[in-house]
Amino acid sequence: MSAMRIGARAFTTHLLSKGQAGNSLLSQRNISTTNINNMKFVQFTYNNDPKQIRAGYLDGDRVVDINKIDSNAPQTLLGLLNSEHIGKVFGYPSSKPQSVPLSDVTLKAPIHGMDKVLCVALNYDDHCKEQNLQEPKIPIIFSKFSSTIIGPNEAVKIRTHISKKVDWEVELAVVIGKTASSVKAADAYKYIFGYTVAQDISGRDWQKESNGGQFLLGKSQDTFCPIGPCIVSADEIGDPHTLDIKCSVNNEEKQNSNTCQLIHKIPDVIERISSIMTLLPGDIILTGTPGGVGMHRKPPQYLKPGDTVTSEIGKIGTLVVSVEEHN
Amino acid sequence: MSAMRIGARAFTTHLLSKGQAGNSLLSQRNISTTNINNMKFVQFTYNNDPKQIRAGYLDGDRVVDINKIDSNAPQTLLGLLNSEHIGKVFGYPSSKPQSVPLSDVTLKAPIHGMDKVLCVALNYDDHCKEQNLQEPKIPIIFSKFSSTIIGPNEAVKIRTHISKKVDWEVELAVVIGKTASSVKAADAYKYIFGYTVAQDISGRDWQKESNGGQFLLGKSQDTFCPIGPCIVSADEIGDPHTLDIKCSVNNEEKQNSNTCQLIHKIPDVIERISSIMTLLPGDIILTGTPGGVGMHRKPPQYLKPGDTVTSEIGKIGTLVVSVEEHN
Repeated sequence: MSAMRIGARAFTTHLLSKGQAGNSLLSQRNISTTNINNMKFVQFTYNNDPKQIRAGYLDGDRVVDINKIDSNAPQTLLGLLNSEHIGKVFGYPSSKPQSVPLSDVTLKAPIHGMDKVLCVALNYDDHCKEQNLQEPKIPIIFSKFSSTIIGPNEAVKIRTHISKKVDWEVELAVVIGKTASSVKAADAYKYIFGYTVAQDISGRDWQKESNGGQFLLGKSQDTFCPIGPCIVSADEIGDPHTLDIKCSVNNEEKQNSNTCQLIHKIPDVIERISSIMTLLPGDIILTGTPGGVGMHRKPPQYLKPGDTVTSEIGKIGTLVVSVEEHN
Repeated sequence: MSAMRIGARAFTTHLLSKGQAGNSLLSQRNISTTNINNMKFVQFTYNNDPKQIRAGYLDGDRVVDINKIDSNAPQTLLGLLNSEHIGKVFGYPSSKPQSVPLSDVTLKAPIHGMDKVLCVALNYDDHCKEQNLQEPKIPIIFSKFSSTIIGPNEAVKIRTHISKKVDWEVELAVVIGKTASSVKAADAYKYIFGYTVAQDISGRDWQKESNGGQFLLGKSQDTFCPIGPCIVSADEIGDPHTLDIKCSVNNEEKQNSNTCQLIHKIPDVIERISSIMTLLPGDIILTGTPGGVGMHRKPPQYLKPGDTVTSEIGKIGTLVVSVEEHN
């Protein structure tokens, strides 16, 4: 199923079938009298206004446009995180808010425009084993540009004449909620806003062969960072090291693991990175990919235009993107 | 002379003493009847409104606030580049515009908030020789986060307990003016808005030893990308491969070369990068540093709080930043 053909209804089905806990918590919101911390944040455009990205949260098969509840609220999720409004969102009264059906909107990447997209290399036990590599003693960090982010209704676009070894890497992504500098692991969860599904799409020829060993050009080609479909607030996830994580290409399973295999746990990664640079609200950290990537298959397998990549993480949902030729 | 002590007058002196051509062209603007292409763009804050960054251009020892000439113009240089207003700025009538004395403002980094800060490794003949390294056959590209940018009145801040080998690298930086994808070298100059002076401050321990060979953590520490004092429009520079480039620390000369030593010329670098990712308006490319960096001195020399780094490129000006302890 191509992302270009997947509708809001299909997205909802995916999301709820994988996120029953979230769904029930969303339902509880309507009967609770306390503030709500368990939410699935999205960004979307109205089908009749496709240029204006808006932040919202899911309410069953509907979406609440945060700016319509509070006209002073910034319209994007990054804007909300950079202001005090994100706290107000969690404090909205739990009575039924104004919402629109998901069929009236197109879901986009749940956050965009942040300063940093950080990635951890070689961070799953099974991914190290498939390469016969020792587990690194420290988390190795590289980056993508935030302009590479795409969302659930967009396509990975490959410059096929120049980038011939484009691979999949499903990853759990952490979304930073507030400025974090020199944070200790014991305090790291306080700085996490939520989690989403990510693909660290990787041009292996450019990552490994064509740039002197620096990963950047293989990792930061246009559209090489699909994320979504939603950001689940940290409270709903609980321990992020207990989540099933899977990737299939054209409905054939390629990766199937669990975040329990993460070598460097998320609090340790945040301690490491924030010891040397300041993390800002909206920054995301892709925590590494499990075994099953294309380059270590025999023979190697790579993505091509026409493919569909489906990425799925427990409690969050399923992200489907198509693959196209870059124009 | 510390950046914290350098006043607007000192900056002007630096700038004009090194940029007589620019100065005379700025003067010509007042007698020309045609549109002006030769400008020195800056960003600044009014001393009585230190939070609001504004874009302007120099007019001798005064600065023209672009938004005050055209209230519809975006207030930042990135905003101007992302809109059609930058073209209008070049088309302003050459009669004396409204301006304020440089002493009324504080100069900031001349651009900020862009998607990409790209850097070329090992791109000067003399820098390869001091390391006994062969010239790379292709430009090797790495990156910094745009949040690392600081300007002429700010300080490089070192986390001295964890980053013990912080080095200088003066570089000519190219500022991209319009979206560039798959651009051939022959067309590359059309996409360049201008040039500025940059420092690719580098934590050598983190670049070389502590991150599995990926440069990112050594290059993207907070404040590790000073740029400025101005962006000189491309027309004023002409051939960017003829410029003297120097760096001194505490008034002791450390680097003294010429951009003629660039191994991979700027059009070739733009062709290479834009073949694999789309360059966006405001993106900057640091083109590499000449010989004379601290790590290859015997014994090695590194920056410490209290130092002053002075970076100077012909036709552009002099950028002075201080070094402090990171809080």
